[in-house]
Amino acid sequence: MSNNNEIPGFVVWMTGLSGAGKTTIALILEEKLRERGLKVERLDGDVVRESLTRDLGFSAEDRAKNIERVTFVAKLLSRNGVGCLCAFISPYQHVRDHVRANTTNFLEVFIDAPLEVVIERDVKGMYKKAIAGDIPNFTGISDPFEAPENPDIHVRTDQQSPEESAQVILDKLASLGYV
Amino acid sequence: MSNNNEIPGFVVWMTGLSGAGKTTIALILEEKLRERGLKVERLDGDVVRESLTRDLGFSAEDRAKNIERVTFVAKLLSRNGVGCLCAFISPYQHVRDHVRANTTNFLEVFIDAPLEVVIERDVKGMYKKAIAGDIPNFTGISDPFEAPENPDIHVRTDQQSPEESAQVILDKLASLGYV
Repeated sequence: MSNNNEIPGFVVWMTGLSGAGKTTIALILEEKLRERGLKVERLDGDVVRESLTRDLGFSAEDRAKNIERVTFVAKLLSRNGVGCLCAFISPYQHVRDHVRANTTNFLEVFIDAPLEVVIERDVKGMYKKAIAGDIPNFTGISDPFEAPENPDIHVRTDQQSPEESAQVILDKLASLGYV
Repeated sequence: MSNNNEIPGFVVWMTGLSGAGKTTIALILEEKLRERGLKVERLDGDVVRESLTRDLGFSAEDRAKNIERVTFVAKLLSRNGVGCLCAFISPYQHVRDHVRANTTNFLEVFIDAPLEVVIERDVKGMYKKAIAGDIPNFTGISDPFEAPENPDIHVRTDQQSPEESAQVILDKLASLGYV
């Protein structure tokens, strides 16, 4: 606001199934944007669970609280010229729409891999447990995932590498003048 | 970081009894800093209770969580060049020291008015209730307030106006090159 050569803040909101590649792509983006000297913060489960959402589990109510708190942080950062890289399953469209309504330069990014692909990957062994019924309310198995109807960016991580997906997002940010 | 004419971020952490004038001074500071075109966010109970700490009450545990979440937000804002004006009773020195350790350019500001003065003011009628025993764990009455031993700034709101107190803080920020 006060300076001429600042970028505007923005929110790259990565939504998708567990194992789709959200955090992997967020980490690549974070590195590339930092290399350019841009102000950027990555917000994902690993980052916020240490303090901001330490008390929360995975119930529907706790997931909603999780996103509510992250939204508050992303609102304050994005309106002050910081780029936020947010990686959360965030399965509900109305919740993502709420984040959009409350933040600056919000981009809904669908990190898309078919369910059978993420079950096959099963990086953390979570799908196996969810299918066996050992984890309740697991998105894609026992809880719905509402795929974005009209995402600002749509990347298919079963068809391209994380680096390629990150580049698609970077190109979009550049075309919008955000980076 | 990327630009030359940016101010560094900072945290003006206002601690003091309920009714000492923390929020009043924060509002004056916010207005004066915004007038200068500086990036600033005010964090106080009224702001964070809408979303970030909506689930929290006033137990010792909930107060600790409250400050923990605010610290996370102030950390991210201050390290990205945003000035944070934080107004919380925050009665414990070790908690304030924790905020200092986790944020950029932290200033502990003691908003000081003697207990008898804030009881006399009793803007929200809280002291009357606390003294009657209707509010448990009330700082200054039934819970301790650890006055800062060595605050960066000490203002006496029983001896000067809120505008004068705000000016003392502004002068300190200017002398440090933060504004």
